[in-house]
Amino acid sequence: MTPVQGSAAEIAASVRSGATSASDVLAAAKARIESADGVIKAFTDLTLERAERQAQEIDAAIAVGRDPGPLAGVPFAVKNLFDIKGLPTRAGSKINRDRTPAIEDAVLIRRLTKAGAVLIGGLNMGEYAYDFTGENVHDGICCNPRNTDHMSGGSSSGSGAAVAAGMVPLALGSDTNGSIRVPSALCGIFGLKPTYGRLPRSGTFPFCDSLDHLGPLARSAQDLALSFDVMQGHDAHDVACARKPSLETTKTLEAGANDLRIAVAGDYFTRGAKPEALEAVAKAASALSVTREVVIPEAARGRAAAFVITTSESSALHIDRLRMRAADFDPDTRYRFLSGALVPAAWYIKAQRFRRWYHDQVIALFKDVDIILAPATPCAAPKIGEKLLTLGEETVPLRPNLGLFTQPISCIGFPVVVAPIQREDDLPLGVQIIAAPWREDLALRVAAELQRLGVAAAPVATGV
Amino acid sequence: MTPVQGSAAEIAASVRSGATSASDVLAAAKARIESADGVIKAFTDLTLERAERQAQEIDAAIAVGRDPGPLAGVPFAVKNLFDIKGLPTRAGSKINRDRTPAIEDAVLIRRLTKAGAVLIGGLNMGEYAYDFTGENVHDGICCNPRNTDHMSGGSSSGSGAAVAAGMVPLALGSDTNGSIRVPSALCGIFGLKPTYGRLPRSGTFPFCDSLDHLGPLARSAQDLALSFDVMQGHDAHDVACARKPSLETTKTLEAGANDLRIAVAGDYFTRGAKPEALEAVAKAASALSVTREVVIPEAARGRAAAFVITTSESSALHIDRLRMRAADFDPDTRYRFLSGALVPAAWYIKAQRFRRWYHDQVIALFKDVDIILAPATPCAAPKIGEKLLTLGEETVPLRPNLGLFTQPISCIGFPVVVAPIQREDDLPLGVQIIAAPWREDLALRVAAELQRLGVAAAPVATGV
Repeated sequence: MTPVQGSAAEIAASVRSGATSASDVLAAAKARIESADGVIKAFTDLTLERAERQAQEIDAAIAVGRDPGPLAGVPFAVKNLFDIKGLPTRAGSKINRDRTPAIEDAVLIRRLTKAGAVLIGGLNMGEYAYDFTGENVHDGICCNPRNTDHMSGGSSSGSGAAVAAGMVPLALGSDTNGSIRVPSALCGIFGLKPTYGRLPRSGTFPFCDSLDHLGPLARSAQDLALSFDVMQGHDAHDVACARKPSLETTKTLEAGANDLRIAVAGDYFTRGAKPEALEAVAKAASALSVTREVVIPEAARGRAAAFVITTSESSALHIDRLRMRAADFDPDTRYRFLSGALVPAAWYIKAQRFRRWYHDQVIALFKDVDIILAPATPCAAPKIGEKLLTLGEETVPLRPNLGLFTQPISCIGFPVVVAPIQREDDLPLGVQIIAAPWREDLALRVAAELQRLGVAAAPVATGV
Repeated sequence: MTPVQGSAAEIAASVRSGATSASDVLAAAKARIESADGVIKAFTDLTLERAERQAQEIDAAIAVGRDPGPLAGVPFAVKNLFDIKGLPTRAGSKINRDRTPAIEDAVLIRRLTKAGAVLIGGLNMGEYAYDFTGENVHDGICCNPRNTDHMSGGSSSGSGAAVAAGMVPLALGSDTNGSIRVPSALCGIFGLKPTYGRLPRSGTFPFCDSLDHLGPLARSAQDLALSFDVMQGHDAHDVACARKPSLETTKTLEAGANDLRIAVAGDYFTRGAKPEALEAVAKAASALSVTREVVIPEAARGRAAAFVITTSESSALHIDRLRMRAADFDPDTRYRFLSGALVPAAWYIKAQRFRRWYHDQVIALFKDVDIILAPATPCAAPKIGEKLLTLGEETVPLRPNLGLFTQPISCIGFPVVVAPIQREDDLPLGVQIIAAPWREDLALRVAAELQRLGVAAAPVATGV
């Protein structure tokens, strides 16, 4: 294992103790990218110059006994919808490359950097985040490090692939309908979609304002917690960002899950899934001795509302680009936005009204439970290029249905950790660990417990 | 002057002192309605039985020395979109008459009743509140008591006409784009559209949720304040209702306006108005020694946003009725709703986004001023049946343009009092007195001052 392939916690401890230098960790990350990313295509931009400068500063600080921060020397990378100073924020598109370079980093990059983490680049993603496959026509298909014939999942495809392949221990992504959770599940790593309004989105290119979340992807629950703790806090430039006290989730991870009331999501979340997706949930439930089932009411309508809201808000955002530069979109994305531009306002208003009602119904469920488990995706990573998905008797379009189980949750902004369940000689699957709003700590505790029990794990994919 | 034609304050004082009985006041109201309402058509429902019962209770309470409340014996009536126990809430429509009767009164009726006011009926209004003229095809045209060939204004037409004609000293209306302020101005009475979220709308039939306000109409600023003070307070059944401390506006009315920084709205609010509308504002400004002018930025776009939001939200609300009972709408209203049902969500989302920006711009203006004066309508009450309005060189559709100056303010929910400026041998005009959010007290103080100075006045229209 190279120095970059430990966990963020291990790397930081090693750098902070002087056992490894930040520069050596960075060199290892660079070497891993050079050897693997020609095939995987996780990175679209490298920021090695600034990274080398920062690594040297960290090493210099340690040499004189100054504290370089809890994430000292931890390389990370970000979905390319985050502003990186000096680069145009492409958001997976061709069109955005004509933007003026960002004049400063996104807030979350600044917070991680302040904690000592070292940004090494921007990551591949689905065009304008409207994707679940990882197939980007402009930057190339980001493939799955666990089997490069298969999809990485999207839209945070590069974030999932870079972490799974051991290029970085930590990446940031965004999740509107499942874009952190789907690639986490398909690439077999951990991912956190926090509560809506928790992490400020200032300095990122939006997809759908009322559904967009940012969050970390990593190879352990501990690393999610470590990065989440330094990224929390209000920022006035994101009007959706709530003024909530920060959680210190790293401190609570050891608490286990015995005191938590955990249930498995029934009904909707047991239909339309391949047997292996349900088996992954059953394995996690069994390890946690969960016997209870709860029904999230009207999840299908929750998903429908998320569809209407996503396509309406994102089409409103892109309408001038659709008018002026239609030919520069991925044709598939273009048709999604064009059809969204024709959705009547009455549908959107109805969807928003339903969403408030549905939110209150699910809040009420959490009076009786602390955590709900559900599959992350209906299947493991499909082969690249596949367009259809057969679920039981029914064959449905593949891309949207990768979000079958994630959309009903993000629609109402509840926090979710995805824990990866590895399978022998087969691609991994993910389990959604869903908590009540503002209780990311509980979801992270359950993920850490599954990891401790040996049920969830995210080894580096070394095949490439 | 009959006992019902004093102000609410005078009636309550007289009833409380025993000089008049609540039953005598009620009888006078009934007599006035009988003599005048055949022509004016302000009332659609009378609730005289319950009114007589309540008047007797008040008189009995006074006889034994119990306090019947600050509005003891004051007759009032409500726009027929307020739930009145035992009646279907028609909201100006034919369709809603098939609803089951309301099982209880709207919250504001309950609060006024508790204060001793006596509900005597439901009032004519534009169909589903989508109106500025007072011409209702189902219930008849509600005409202007100051000249019955002219419009009362809408959509709270009956509220404006009943108060101006001296049938009641106090009425409730609703204002989405100007529906309290337009009939107040055209009928020459006082009207208050409070801050959005101030008065709970529980138990009323909505028009456009994110723009709907309720408020009182009366013949004095004092009566607006009296009723406003007893109607304030949170109610959980209206999710838009804010938890704000109540103002005691009646106590502050005597303070005058010398300490207030008052400006006249320039630019947009001086264009597209008949000279007499601007003269009314100039008269008020001169009496208050106002010399300053401020520009409300982007008011035209504020109005455009209000149009898009109104038609989108109201069409979403009525879509099932449009499908099932299209023929039972007023054809004019039906086309407005049908076209609204085709507005793209992208427009609605853009309008809502602009609205937040515009709100912040206007909030910033109020750092330097306490009150902004503007015309209420571009003209005095047009003749019934008129469809066009000539403003300067331009001829425009009449109905929507009665809201030319009211829509840009309600779009962002700021409180406004309309003060009536009477003219000799001509129909009155209104001045909007606009304050910052939650400062209804300041707008009421200025209205009271204009009244004290003899500039604003609302005598009973005795011609009918």
